[in-house]
Amino acid sequence: MTFIRNTWYAAAWSGDIGRKLFSRTLLNEPVLFYRREDGSIVAMRDRCPHRLVPLSMGRLVGDDVECIYHGLKFDGGGRCIANPNGSQLIPKAAAVDAYRVVERHQIVWIWMGEQALADEAQVPDLPWLADPEHFTETHGTTTLPASYLLVVDNLMDLRHTAFLHSALEPRDHALIPVKDYEENGRVWAKIFSENTPPPPFFAMKIEGRVDHWQEMLCYPPGVCAIFYGVTAPGRPRKEGLDTINISLVTPETDRSSHYLWASARDFDLDDGKLTEAVREGSAYAFANEDAPVLAAQQQAIGDRDLMEFGPVLFSNDVAAGRVRRIIERRLAEERQGGAPTCGEGNWPPGTDAALLSI
Amino acid sequence: MTFIRNTWYAAAWSGDIGRKLFSRTLLNEPVLFYRREDGSIVAMRDRCPHRLVPLSMGRLVGDDVECIYHGLKFDGGGRCIANPNGSQLIPKAAAVDAYRVVERHQIVWIWMGEQALADEAQVPDLPWLADPEHFTETHGTTTLPASYLLVVDNLMDLRHTAFLHSALEPRDHALIPVKDYEENGRVWAKIFSENTPPPPFFAMKIEGRVDHWQEMLCYPPGVCAIFYGVTAPGRPRKEGLDTINISLVTPETDRSSHYLWASARDFDLDDGKLTEAVREGSAYAFANEDAPVLAAQQQAIGDRDLMEFGPVLFSNDVAAGRVRRIIERRLAEERQGGAPTCGEGNWPPGTDAALLSI
Amino acid sequence: MTFIRNTWYAAAWSGDIGRKLFSRTLLNEPVLFYRREDGSIVAMRDRCPHRLVPLSMGRLVGDDVECIYHGLKFDGGGRCIANPNGSQLIPKAAAVDAYRVVERHQIVWIWMGEQALADEAQVPDLPWLADPEHFTETHGTTTLPASYLLVVDNLMDLRHTAFLHSALEPRDHALIPVKDYEENGRVWAKIFSENTPPPPFFAMKIEGRVDHWQEMLCYPPGVCAIFYGVTAPGRPRKEGLDTINISLVTPETDRSSHYLWASARDFDLDDGKLTEAVREGSAYAFANEDAPVLAAQQQAIGDRDLMEFGPVLFSNDVAAGRVRRIIERRLAEERQGGAPTCGEGNWPPGTDAALLSI
Repeated sequence: MTFIRNTWYAAAWSGDIGRKLFSRTLLNEPVLFYRREDGSIVAMRDRCPHRLVPLSMGRLVGDDVECIYHGLKFDGGGRCIANPNGSQLIPKAAAVDAYRVVERHQIVWIWMGEQALADEAQVPDLPWLADPEHFTETHGTTTLPASYLLVVDNLMDLRHTAFLHSALEPRDHALIPVKDYEENGRVWAKIFSENTPPPPFFAMKIEGRVDHWQEMLCYPPGVCAIFYGVTAPGRPRKEGLDTINISLVTPETDRSSHYLWASARDFDLDDGKLTEAVREGSAYAFANEDAPVLAAQQQAIGDRDLMEFGPVLFSNDVAAGRVRRIIERRLAEERQGGAPTCGEGNWPPGTDAALLSI
Repeated sequence: MTFIRNTWYAAAWSGDIGRKLFSRTLLNEPVLFYRREDGSIVAMRDRCPHRLVPLSMGRLVGDDVECIYHGLKFDGGGRCIANPNGSQLIPKAAAVDAYRVVERHQIVWIWMGEQALADEAQVPDLPWLADPEHFTETHGTTTLPASYLLVVDNLMDLRHTAFLHSALEPRDHALIPVKDYEENGRVWAKIFSENTPPPPFFAMKIEGRVDHWQEMLCYPPGVCAIFYGVTAPGRPRKEGLDTINISLVTPETDRSSHYLWASARDFDLDDGKLTEAVREGSAYAFANEDAPVLAAQQQAIGDRDLMEFGPVLFSNDVAAGRVRRIIERRLAEERQGGAPTCGEGNWPPGTDAALLSI
Repeated sequence: MTFIRNTWYAAAWSGDIGRKLFSRTLLNEPVLFYRREDGSIVAMRDRCPHRLVPLSMGRLVGDDVECIYHGLKFDGGGRCIANPNGSQLIPKAAAVDAYRVVERHQIVWIWMGEQALADEAQVPDLPWLADPEHFTETHGTTTLPASYLLVVDNLMDLRHTAFLHSALEPRDHALIPVKDYEENGRVWAKIFSENTPPPPFFAMKIEGRVDHWQEMLCYPPGVCAIFYGVTAPGRPRKEGLDTINISLVTPETDRSSHYLWASARDFDLDDGKLTEAVREGSAYAFANEDAPVLAAQQQAIGDRDLMEFGPVLFSNDVAAGRVRRIIERRLAEERQGGAPTCGEGNWPPGTDAALLSI
């Protein structure tokens, strides 16, 4: 499998990276992370260029990392700056690839492609994760035993909720038409349900019938956010209850994915019990509902791609198909050496997701 | 590895299949089984044509199965009969391969090749498994970590009993000539030992010397039954003690096999202790004697075929060789598109196995 | 990976082989070992030529081994000498490869190449392992999850001790020049440190400053011995404290190695506590320091060779490079069918390792 490289991938939560060496495989490659003494984050290939030993087995010395095997020391830019052996000369080629990292709204983003093309303006903007005055959020990380493509297919397909996550939506929710479209390199999939009984999550907070929206936005390859809320029939969204559930899918290997998720809401900010219930419910759904299905799909597919099997697709799959086509287009562009064309990172102005206005 | 497809394979015991979804990998392919409300058995590829999720993760609704992921419903013929999403249109291609199944004498037989060629007359007939008036039987299922070919080699080679299963036959049993021949697409291997001390299993039931027979019949690829008994010297078999041990070997993957076994006898029908001892003894021999040897062979062979290693073969191997040649011939026929030539399923008339006359 | 075959490999410690069948995979091939009644050692391919079952699953009968599956009996030369089946004829091809074995100084050496070329004079001589009057030794065996090449690289690189085994040498030990050279098909790497504080192991036995030597000798492919000692500044080595640590690295598979090690010393011969401390310390260093690094290297390399990754090498790696070049040269010679050119097995006369004079 080939991955888009000229893009920002979510590598970790800010809190995951500190003054301890942290290694995570991304895009089939082990990457070492740590913070310098000033708090800035370093990311480099986790492999000493001398004998290929993971640098993460070594130790942090000030802002630098020292290999466990022969004490070669590398700075945060991946340059070898000390060789405590023999003549102490430093071989010119002694360097590891270092990667641009941006920390924003609690997420550590990494650019593993051509470093000169790394553009901070393209970092997806997830303001809800860092606005405690208006939002309460809970988040976590899991590893899914499936290609990131299967995970994104799952996310872009709003209707599977009515079946696989039957505690969240009634079955007839799957009958509502989905509106999906591409906009500036991103993909939207939206369901709007007028004057309907509230889904279970909101039924404990609101009485009577509601207008209910479910709007997934994807920045290919793997940044997804769903706006999920209710309001009284015909009333503006701002008067209702809103949640934003964020899914950051980053390839670990060809057949596995890191899944960083967060759930934010704009009501009952101080209700710790509710926050905990959301955390538990989300973790339960990923582990017991999505993960087994994704693992079974990956097992059926093996080392091939889903599309080689000629699956029978229908309207549920249109949004996922849009994302896959954008990924293919960008891969083709990378092969031809062009600069990325994924647009800016900030959420598009003028969308109808009320929460974008904050 | 290529498997014969136009043949009946033993998929399960009747009691294994009920109103719960049951998945078993056969010939490298996951197959879903269940019973309709009328008790008839359904078998189909255990893979939703939409997103390749195993249908066995879903649920049984009346006579149909519903996919866990998006609620697509399939009837027992593998046709998609409901799509509870969006427009509810059913894509024409939404179907899975369904397989002809025949239930006979407690065994569920499946035909995974060209369905139009499935011929019930070819189902092997194992009447002893369903004749409680004349026979007591015990049975079980295990999975062996070896190609079905190695398992059938093992079964067709009567002499290994004297070494690997030394509790069953004395070593000099291996000196007796084996008579083996092909007859109407089946293979016999027979040992007849006149006026000999009874082997241990019969020694507790009969006094003095006996005539002892051991007659293996194989319907290639993997249906084997051995007639194993004793009678007083020179007396008809019907006066003696007879057992029929049935081995149904079905490929799970290239390197593993399902092994359905039964042991029936025509004496001491009500001796539950004896039945239990036979069950325990058989399970012990498979798990502790055959399985380790078969696993070690498979490990030595890896993904290749035994014959590529140029093994040194001798008279013990002639019967197994006959079976392998029939399998090769039938594979060649399938590649050329011909109909199966395996003869009828019923045990051949006129054989000298006394028990066939029941 | 291709291994040199025309050479002596350390297969086991003498005490490992007795009257019990012993199987060990060497050079990707399972090998059966046992002792005849006269104590001589047999080595043969652990695979019956009939059905490829490991002979080690069978049993020892006098000086012969009998296969568990059909009772074929093989003598210590690998010839089938009995077939207790049917006509009892022995197929001419029924034989397994047997290998020349030499037992010397507690080590069982095996020659797995062309048997006619096996030359006992080439067996490496490790006299310290069998001279209890002058030496006390302790030894052990472990399996390392890395190619023998990575293990030998590690051994030939004296400086890694100052980092990976920081309890043994101070960091500035890595600054001392290494003298390395090839001599008669062997490779030396030597560090000599004049008038220095004693390293921790010797500090408990000697006061004041010392001259300290560390001299590794390798017989490619995998026989290594390091002379490691101290003496009072300017005094002859014989007046000081000497240890010889022997590492015998034998490929198990392409990605794993058997590692037979011994540690001998010429002082405090009766100090059982010290001997035990050396044993524990050695086992600790292999398991907790070397093995994780070697395993991580192998994981990074996968099924390729380290050199394909273009590692950055420097003076630490010169000695290891000499060994690799000798291995490559000998492999090329074997491919051309020439006799081995690895010189005699005895330690070279005239070397400056004091202990060689015993």
